[in-house]
Amino acid sequence: MLTGNGDTLKMFTSRAIGFVSSPYKDTGEVPKGLGAQHQADGVLKILPEFELGLTNIEGFSHLIVLWEFDRAQGFELLGTPPSDNRAHGVFATRSPRRPNPIALTIVELLRREGSELHVRGVDMLDRTPILDIKPLLSSIPVERLRRGWLAEAEARGSG
Amino acid sequence: MLTGNGDTLKMFTSRAIGFVSSPYKDTGEVPKGLGAQHQADGVLKILPEFELGLTNIEGFSHLIVLWEFDRAQGFELLGTPPSDNRAHGVFATRSPRRPNPIALTIVELLRREGSELHVRGVDMLDRTPILDIKPLLSSIPVERLRRGWLAEAEARGSG
Repeated sequence: MLTGNGDTLKMFTSRAIGFVSSPYKDTGEVPKGLGAQHQADGVLKILPEFELGLTNIEGFSHLIVLWEFDRAQGFELLGTPPSDNRAHGVFATRSPRRPNPIALTIVELLRREGSELHVRGVDMLDRTPILDIKPLLSSIPVERLRRGWLAEAEARGSG
Repeated sequence: MLTGNGDTLKMFTSRAIGFVSSPYKDTGEVPKGLGAQHQADGVLKILPEFELGLTNIEGFSHLIVLWEFDRAQGFELLGTPPSDNRAHGVFATRSPRRPNPIALTIVELLRREGSELHVRGVDMLDRTPILDIKPLLSSIPVERLRRGWLAEAEARGSG
């Protein structure tokens, strides 16, 4: 049987460590689907009480930003993403309608100004709550990546 | 002033979509620090009610697993990681003591057996709650990565 650590599971309630300042005010403005490029500049505005947690972050070129899909409603285990006309499981897509509404974006750190991180590559809406920031420490070599249905959809799209 | 989307922030309570089956029973057994290799095999056991969400995940070689540091207590904005003797901000490290106790591991998908994903590269403890799984769609070229204090600590360690 599947059980967690002990009889009761210690889960947590999310809290914002800051908010995204983004050029995108509405979902329809965010580039989506095949070949979508996320080159928009934005600012990760960290709340003053968490600024100490940014110490020495300047040395990293890329950051993993975990944020909350705060405008998504519920979840859908099977859905058809904008990049395909076939349905896929939510854990095989980046759909916002997930059991835990956590999103992930890798951004390039341009500079830090106090509690503000100026970054490139945002795909979040303006005022999105940020849950966590982690340094990107390693990368899977591109030649070792297999991208499943997405690669197939791309191949069909260009065929 | 920093504000979220609207007057009240819609945050969420985490829920487990499954649990990790890992060879590591205790924190001390997980390889840590400079040059730590995570090659251990494990199984992501997804709860039956979420199995549909795995549809077509088989085509991806690498998965991003978000999981909960369910055995960490509170958070620490400044701390000294095992890989250095200097203190760094929590958002510049992978410390488990974070404002939102969310961890991230990239694993290689070996095979799927129903609701079980057999993977390589686990660094979670046995029975760790899984929050989310996402396909790894792209990678930052290694030559573009700067790794801040970690690269410095490695250079000192080998010098």
